[in-house]
This record gives sequence, C-alpha cells and structure tokens, in this order.
Amino acid sequence: MKHIIIAQLLDRRERRIDRCSNMEVENILRMKEGVGECSYAKNSLLQRTMIAKAKPVLQESIRGLYHALQPECLMIADLGCSSGPNSLMVVSEIIDTIDEERKNLNRKSPKFGVFLNDLQGNDFNAIFNLLPSFYQSLKEKKDSDFGPCFVSGTPKSFYGSVFPDQFLHFVHSSYSVHWLSQVPRGLESRNGEALNKGNIYIAKTSPPEIAQAYYAQFKEDFTLFLRSRGKEMVPGGHMVLTLQGSVQRNDPDSLWELLGSTLHTMVQEGVIEQEKLDRFNMPFYSPTAEEVKELVEAEGLFSVNKLETFKVDWSVDTNQNLENRAKFVANTIRAVTESLLTTAYGEAAMDDLFLRFSRMVKERMDQEQSEYLNIVVSMIKRD
Amino acid sequence: MKHIIIAQLLDRRERRIDRCSNMEVENILRMKEGVGECSYAKNSLLQRTMIAKAKPVLQESIRGLYHALQPECLMIADLGCSSGPNSLMVVSEIIDTIDEERKNLNRKSPKFGVFLNDLQGNDFNAIFNLLPSFYQSLKEKKDSDFGPCFVSGTPKSFYGSVFPDQFLHFVHSSYSVHWLSQVPRGLESRNGEALNKGNIYIAKTSPPEIAQAYYAQFKEDFTLFLRSRGKEMVPGGHMVLTLQGSVQRNDPDSLWELLGSTLHTMVQEGVIEQEKLDRFNMPFYSPTAEEVKELVEAEGLFSVNKLETFKVDWSVDTNQNLENRAKFVANTIRAVTESLLTTAYGEAAMDDLFLRFSRMVKERMDQEQSEYLNIVVSMIKRD
Repeated sequence: MKHIIIAQLLDRRERRIDRCSNMEVENILRMKEGVGECSYAKNSLLQRTMIAKAKPVLQESIRGLYHALQPECLMIADLGCSSGPNSLMVVSEIIDTIDEERKNLNRKSPKFGVFLNDLQGNDFNAIFNLLPSFYQSLKEKKDSDFGPCFVSGTPKSFYGSVFPDQFLHFVHSSYSVHWLSQVPRGLESRNGEALNKGNIYIAKTSPPEIAQAYYAQFKEDFTLFLRSRGKEMVPGGHMVLTLQGSVQRNDPDSLWELLGSTLHTMVQEGVIEQEKLDRFNMPFYSPTAEEVKELVEAEGLFSVNKLETFKVDWSVDTNQNLENRAKFVANTIRAVTESLLTTAYGEAAMDDLFLRFSRMVKERMDQEQSEYLNIVVSMIKRD
Repeated sequence: MKHIIIAQLLDRRERRIDRCSNMEVENILRMKEGVGECSYAKNSLLQRTMIAKAKPVLQESIRGLYHALQPECLMIADLGCSSGPNSLMVVSEIIDTIDEERKNLNRKSPKFGVFLNDLQGNDFNAIFNLLPSFYQSLKEKKDSDFGPCFVSGTPKSFYGSVFPDQFLHFVHSSYSVHWLSQVPRGLESRNGEALNKGNIYIAKTSPPEIAQAYYAQFKEDFTLFLRSRGKEMVPGGHMVLTLQGSVQRNDPDSLWELLGSTLHTMVQEGVIEQEKLDRFNMPFYSPTAEEVKELVEAEGLFSVNKLETFKVDWSVDTNQNLENRAKFVANTIRAVTESLLTTAYGEAAMDDLFLRFSRMVKERMDQEQSEYLNIVVSMIKRD
C-alpha cells in the first residue's frame, strides 16, 4: 500500500514532505501502517502486554455498562484497531466478559455489533481474513444461544465523526489517542526558522513554546475525540482508553530523546542533513493522568469512572539479556515510526539509524530502569 | 490473497479440490475475488452497464423508502459489493437520489450509514483506499448541511445474518444472488457417479435431475437470503436486487454451455481429464422472473414492488468488431471464473482454455444475437 500513500502525499504538491510541521493524518497513517508491515509479531507482544494490564479496568467498565443498559444488541467500537491478532483479542475479551455476565444474571445473550476502526491505510483485509476462524471459535466456545456477533471495519480518522449519532454503547481504544492528528502548528514559526532544533519531541533542550504547542495540539485533538464520541455514544455508554502517559507535565520522552540523539549523531557525521532533523517532529503527545482528567472534565460530556496508571518495561520481558531487550525496543520503535522516518530521511538511512538507536537504547537500559508509563481511563457518557 | 484461500482449501483435507460438488463458499469467494484480480477494468464495464440499466427501479425504490420512513440516519447495505470503483458508484447514486428528494421536500439531510458487504476474501482495502476521495467529492458536491455519510465494510456471506435485527432501511445487491452458496448437492450421486457428465451447468444434454437440483439449491439459498434480510431490515424497508435471469425455467445458459463445450474439446484432446470435467459444476443459477416472484411471495416477508427484465449484449458495446467483442466476453467470463477453474483444472490450462473459449464465443456471436437477460426486482419489507 506504500505506493498509494506516497502518491497521496505527492499529490499535495504545495507541501514538502520533509517539512513535518505540515504533516497531517496521512503520515500517522503511514506510521500505524508500519506496525503491520515490518515487525508486527514483535510489536504485538508490547501491545498484548498493555491490553492485559488494562484488562481489569476494561472488564469492570464493560460489566458496568451491561448492568446499566442491557441492550438487545451491544454496539462496540475499537478505535485505532490496527491489524493483526490483537485487533480481535480485545473484541474477544469484551464479548467474553458480557457473555459471562449475562449468564450470571440469567439473561438472554445480546447480539454484538463490532466496529473496528482505523485510518483507511490500515490493512483491514488482514483482519477480515481472521474473521472466519474468529466466528468459528465463537461457535465452538459459546452456547448455542450466543450472539450472534457481526464485525465490520470502519476506516476513518477518529478525530471527527466515524459513526451515526447515538450508535455505540461501548468504545475502546488502545495505544492510539497519544498519536496527534498532525505535528503541532508553530514548531517552525520563528521567521520560518525551526524552533525545536536538534530534537524530535519535547526535550530538555527544547524552548518552552514546544511543550506548549504539543499540549495545545493534544488538547485540541483529544477534545475533538471526546466530542465526536459524545455524539456517537448513547447516554450511559462506557469508553475505555489506554494511552502512553507522562509522570509530569512537559516531561521529555526518553525514547524520542534517544531517537533524536541518534539522528543528531547522524547529522554530525553528515549522514543526514541538519535541516531535515530541525524540521522533523513527532505527531505524538503523552499527557499526564491529570491532564487527561482535566480535559475530560472540562469538556463535560463524560464523567471519569476510573483513572489508573501502570508501568511496562520498554522490553516487556526483563528476563531476556540486555542485547535482545535493546533489539526488541529498537524493533518496536522501528515498527511504529519507520514510514514516518523514511519519508523524512530516506529509506537508505533506516538500517543504520536503528542499529545506532539499538546501541543507545542498550546503554540507557544498562544505566537505569526504562519503562513506559501508561494511562488507562474509563468514562461514562453523561445523560 | 490467493495463497490464503488455497491454504483454506487445502486445510480441509477431507475434500478433494477437484470434486466441485463439495465446493462451498470459499470457492465462490475465489470467483468473486477474480473480478478484482485479473480484469476488473473490463468486467466493470459490464457491471456498470447493469447498474445503469437498473437505475430507474433503484431510484424509484429509494424515493419510495425515503417518503415512507424519512429516517434521521438512513442505513444502507450493498451486498456482494466486490471491489473497485463500481462499489461506491451505487452508493453515490443512492445518496444523490435521497439528497435530491429531501431538497424537494425541504427537509434536513439524513445521515447515511453505508455498509459494503462481500465475502471476507474480497479486497476491502481497495475500496477503503477510495474513501478519502469519495468523502472529498461529497464535501465538494453537497451542501454544507449534507449527511454526513459513514462507510463501513462488513465481510460475511449474505446467506445468513450479516447485520443486527432491524438495522437496515435499504438493501441493494447487484449481480450477486445468482451465485449459489455451493454447487447443488446430489450432482454426483448415482452410485458416486457424476450425473452431469460433460456439462458444467444445466445443458441440453443434462438429465432432468440437474435442473431440479439447481433450482432446489437456488430456492434454499434465495429463501435464506430473504429470511436473513427480513430480520435485518425495518418494516417498510426497501430492497433492490439485480441478477442474471433466464427466459424460461431450466433454460440452459449459453455462455456456460460454450464454456462446457470448450472444456469438452480439451478433454477430447487429452489436455484435461474427463473425470475433472464430469465432476465440475458451476455454483450459479439464473432464475426466471416468475421464479423470483414466486419465491419472494412464498416466503412472505416482502411484497414485490416492481419486477422488470432487461437485456444486455454479451459484449455490451455492439459497435466494436466481432473479434474485440468476443475477447471482451472471454475476459469477462475469465474474470469471474478463473479462480474456480484454476482449482479444478490447474493454472497451466487457463490461457489455452480462454483462447479456445474466445473463438467459440466469436462463432456464436456471429450466428445469433447473444444477450444476458437480467432481472431487477424491488421489494418492500412487510410490517
């Protein structure tokens, strides 16, 4: 699919694809697409771990929803579903939880309308190819009065309406809403000069405008996300979001700092042009739990039901040796950033970049415990 | 995707893939997939022509629906959507008709929930890649208060439930319901001996059981289709189906007869094994308009609103020279049957087969006017 997306980018001739401050949805699409393309199997371990960690909050929320609404047909959306086995794993968990609960309550099984959403560049065919065995396994595992369950794919940016009004009872999104709709505006604004020179995200050496611009973009995107879901969900509907978070406001992100440093080294060695690095910024923001809570409350359509954080080691499995753990981290980051980085720096630089990056990650992991902080929040649509 | 489907077939080790009487959904999937794979551009002209011919009935039906129900969000399904530009062409037509009508009535635009259905092997990614320009063109062409419109893909066999109960207002299906869910049972039943020797569909030399078995399978499938839609559609909902038809009951199909004759010649020349031809039958049935009407009325969930037939020349464009017209027909048939025929006779035979077939088609078209008969039926879901 790469050629189509590149064609889309080239179509927008007014833009220079190396000027990432103008970058919008299509590039994030490329990033997410990378997950499927190059090392999904590895990356999926991290995703699976996140999903497992968020499971208690997810289950509590879905049980709460079922008790409150008991719909005849439960309409569920997974936003930013990506492609691969994990896409249907969450769906299975949600269905299993409801099926257990309705048995406890001695109720008829609801039907399930499941809508898997991601950008249109996502490999929906790959998910759809898993559906016959998914349906088969439901048939084998569930009682004869179960469901049925109907799975659709709905490709569209979740920053905006994806579904009709009051269509959904339950919304889930894992590891997606920390991706911004675009690189924050104004990162290259001072007389056309890049503001965040030598960095690719909020970093220790970034001027204060950078953190402000990132937060402003997240606020705009996340508020639009909440408003869109607010329209699509029925009153009393539940939503569970898992996203990467920060301990403190404006915290630099260690992995993006390391990736920035790696790129910086390559600039110093003349492998990459200085200007390309200066103009490149990640369309990503990891808010604090407090920021998430504030924005949900300020927007007012949802009440926060539960808000928790949990940590996961960068390498997930700390029993592996340091070499392997560093490689795993580099592969994970490569999977989610390669399309984006290829657009900015060229494909030829990628192997070199991630070999260097892997070494820097190894050094860092040797020095200190390196973990992702994650936020899981469940909220209820107000009446 | 071919490898996946072949893997699925090989997985079912109890089946012999050359014994087509055991063939089920996966093979039809292969056929429909073929449309996208090998000569969609050519085949789409035929499809487009059919859609254009059925347009007046479609428009009348959708207007009638809108007048009767005026839903806030109009839920539309296109069953057997295939992939390619035609998939969204029908959707555009439906939307345009409603949008015109609501303006005539001075009403607010409804929202549109559009569900494109086909088997899971269909190339949904290809359709989804057209969505950004589809949404863009709606934005440009429609007033600011239009819609919005939300498009999803729902991969599942339409012989069975695809959507929740009372979910849809309008159902459309073009050139799909003449494909059976499987080759009729019993075509090889006499002491394990094939009954329809040397033919691949109802032919002049077929014993009477063949036509009976084909009609029985169509009756079973079409009734299941109607029951499934009956559950999914709201009372007063409309459905428009276009399918290939026959002038008289148990009519041999000239194109399948020619394809059968071509295969027969290849058997005589030792290119293809006799047994393979004897056991191969098309999972296809073209009913008469009367049969369609009878089955809809017998099933009772829908009332027939309009039932028309129209003819289209095999080559669509009779201004072309005979050579080109015959090639067009051969390419069209190759597009919809190649995967199926490859499974039965091997890929190596295909070029030879369709070269011979093209010659036979040319001969036939030189002798007589050769046309598809098509049925378009609109029906209304009873209360």
